[in-house]
Amino acid sequence: MSAPDHAVAAAEVEEVLALVRASCPALAPERVALHDALGRVLREPVHATEDQPAFDRSSVDGYAVRLDDAGSEFSVVAEIRAGEWKPGPLQLGQAVRIATGGALPCEGLQVVMKEDAKITGTCLTVLNRRSEKNIRFRGEEARQGQVLLEVGTELHHGALGLLASLGHTQPLVSGLPRVLHLTTGNELVSPDQTPGPGQIRDCNSTLVRAFLRERQITPEQFHLPEDEAEAQALVEELGLAQTAKDLGTQTAALCRDAATGRGISAASRMSHVRGGFFPDLLLVSGGASVGDHDFTRRLLERLGYTVGINETKARPGKPLIVAHREHTLAFGLPGNPLAHFVCLNLYVRAALDVFLGRPPRTCFDQGVLEVAFDGGGNSRETFWPAFGHLVEGVASLTPLRWSSSSDLTSLARANTLVRVKAACRKLPRGARVEFVATAHFL
Amino acid sequence: MSAPDHAVAAAEVEEVLALVRASCPALAPERVALHDALGRVLREPVHATEDQPAFDRSSVDGYAVRLDDAGSEFSVVAEIRAGEWKPGPLQLGQAVRIATGGALPCEGLQVVMKEDAKITGTCLTVLNRRSEKNIRFRGEEARQGQVLLEVGTELHHGALGLLASLGHTQPLVSGLPRVLHLTTGNELVSPDQTPGPGQIRDCNSTLVRAFLRERQITPEQFHLPEDEAEAQALVEELGLAQTAKDLGTQTAALCRDAATGRGISAASRMSHVRGGFFPDLLLVSGGASVGDHDFTRRLLERLGYTVGINETKARPGKPLIVAHREHTLAFGLPGNPLAHFVCLNLYVRAALDVFLGRPPRTCFDQGVLEVAFDGGGNSRETFWPAFGHLVEGVASLTPLRWSSSSDLTSLARANTLVRVKAACRKLPRGARVEFVATAHFL
Repeated sequence: MSAPDHAVAAAEVEEVLALVRASCPALAPERVALHDALGRVLREPVHATEDQPAFDRSSVDGYAVRLDDAGSEFSVVAEIRAGEWKPGPLQLGQAVRIATGGALPCEGLQVVMKEDAKITGTCLTVLNRRSEKNIRFRGEEARQGQVLLEVGTELHHGALGLLASLGHTQPLVSGLPRVLHLTTGNELVSPDQTPGPGQIRDCNSTLVRAFLRERQITPEQFHLPEDEAEAQALVEELGLAQTAKDLGTQTAALCRDAATGRGISAASRMSHVRGGFFPDLLLVSGGASVGDHDFTRRLLERLGYTVGINETKARPGKPLIVAHREHTLAFGLPGNPLAHFVCLNLYVRAALDVFLGRPPRTCFDQGVLEVAFDGGGNSRETFWPAFGHLVEGVASLTPLRWSSSSDLTSLARANTLVRVKAACRKLPRGARVEFVATAHFL
Repeated sequence: MSAPDHAVAAAEVEEVLALVRASCPALAPERVALHDALGRVLREPVHATEDQPAFDRSSVDGYAVRLDDAGSEFSVVAEIRAGEWKPGPLQLGQAVRIATGGALPCEGLQVVMKEDAKITGTCLTVLNRRSEKNIRFRGEEARQGQVLLEVGTELHHGALGLLASLGHTQPLVSGLPRVLHLTTGNELVSPDQTPGPGQIRDCNSTLVRAFLRERQITPEQFHLPEDEAEAQALVEELGLAQTAKDLGTQTAALCRDAATGRGISAASRMSHVRGGFFPDLLLVSGGASVGDHDFTRRLLERLGYTVGINETKARPGKPLIVAHREHTLAFGLPGNPLAHFVCLNLYVRAALDVFLGRPPRTCFDQGVLEVAFDGGGNSRETFWPAFGHLVEGVASLTPLRWSSSSDLTSLARANTLVRVKAACRKLPRGARVEFVATAHFL
């Protein structure tokens, strides 16, 4: 499918990843509310604003007495409940009833658990004086000013709970990339339509949308007309082109919302232009018609993108365009859906990791084959859909059957892609392989 | 903190999990649109409604010729683009230009890649006749009626793409549980407020909300008054009690939205009752005041719940109430936030897995310690916050520092809980341990 005018040689996977990572920056961070920060990446260090805990707290329900008071009979002179603040000295022979979380009234105390005490009116008898103080001392978790969350922390529920406890309710997190996804291909009908003879359902729109949604990103999605000039005009209308254009209604019929199959009004499209919509990431799902690959390349070049890669040495996903324009990226993804899946999980993911400010990571993990496997001896390196899980602590992978780059059936079970070297044939059970997780592994 | 009237003995973790799993059913499934099905669990098998692919398709851009035609010069008599349907026989000496994805016009053909051909007008010269047919044959991925997605499949982006390709745009998936989360504790202020002396910020509301949001669930959250009778009245107003009650405005001041700290109007609360709000899962975050544990237990019992467990042998998370009422569950969670984190990730997660129709799974994975470790010899089994990742294919875990069950600082980095046996002291690097993942591991 590569045309002779493509000067760039087919790239190794690592070359594509290096180019992607070098072509885009972390997006400008933004402050969001805690509940909107889930899954985002922290872009500032977060310090303890006060000692943690901020005061000596009882860790049990019981009675505070002086450490230097060796007696076993005490007079209960006060009660301190959680949330109360009653500082003051305690005399020998005195005790204060205190609840879990209650603030100790002074230093030099211990808390006798209520299970170790007998109470009659205000008269306390300690039945079992243990050595434990049962106090969480001010600053024992962290000191004021100490960095508790580093830049790059992924904000899962635990980290958000920590931020809440610190009162850091507007964390600075990575902005989400604006993503525009354009589909091409005359043979596509929307998934809820019955394909006519020769037609197929568009599954790439669903694949891309769900892949992005797993990363909190909602893309704009449109279907491009097959005619190159019309497609070019539409993309310019969408606000991608550098030259503003008059937005008539004459091209409204060209534009189909990829998710619903419904037409998009010119007014709706205009909002993109007026809002200065320019994507951080442009994804074009190539169709399967003759010359479509060139079409995407030409489209991107006319939009001012510089094409860095237009073919990889891996499959599925040989025809892949990677282009950049200033600090934004574009991918021309091969139209076959399994190739889409592979390119999303290898290359687009790498771009999103950079945009989102994730710390650099090795792209591939290691694991072992759970079954003997025949790689088929293909001349290209292959990313093979597989099911992976931990078996006695070891990442264990079972490659799944697939027939071609258009065959999605393996994706019902696949949660990984296993990297199978070029010309690889038989591998025994237990052979070490590289893989990348595409869904929850644990 | 256990009161003498608690007849149930402290439970092993496995006992708690068994009770939880036995106490709740998978929720009634519902049909949702593809884009709403992300992260849900499929509750019906999905078949191929037609052969996959549904027709013989070219896998390359090229020229279709008869397999039994050994010539090297052909006349191009037609063009078939993707999406077109032009059935008909091909004569010897004839070729049809065909695009990737285009429907073959008849059987008995192969497609010569355009890179292997030279075209002059309508005259085609095949330069290199290979053995590959370059055709994806009807049904080679799957046959009509074949089950492609099993009950229990988790719908990540790949599986959704497959559903879209099958035209299965309204999958039957697990319903999401309705969750009500009630916080208690007089010492709590909302995270955006500055705690006064003796007060602390409520981080459990954030922790619970984010934990549930990671599973697509949005809870209702309220803060309960400290007074037991007032709390009981409020909970009944929230629609939990079996007896409908008059909804006056006199108790409006009792009710604080746990996320914002703002009061909830009686009208807002009424909507719960009128809508028949009754949670599948009730979570009560215990405060730290004397007797609060009993309060939650009595509250649950008055609401008709049967308490099955009120203490565990593990820490953090010793005081834990598990109760059920018909097919719904309630947890009384210990107020300390690290204990919350542990109980959410062990027990509440097990309940959600059942509600959501996930296939039963072993709760604990195995891994090895990446560093030597001192468990401290505590008399209780401990779930220890840790950082886990794969090292040469092996799940490798580094336990993190924590000072008490109220200490969340380890959660900045923790993505796992390592199970440390009771009385465990020194473990060498490489020792095998059990763990549970609390966040993305890969």
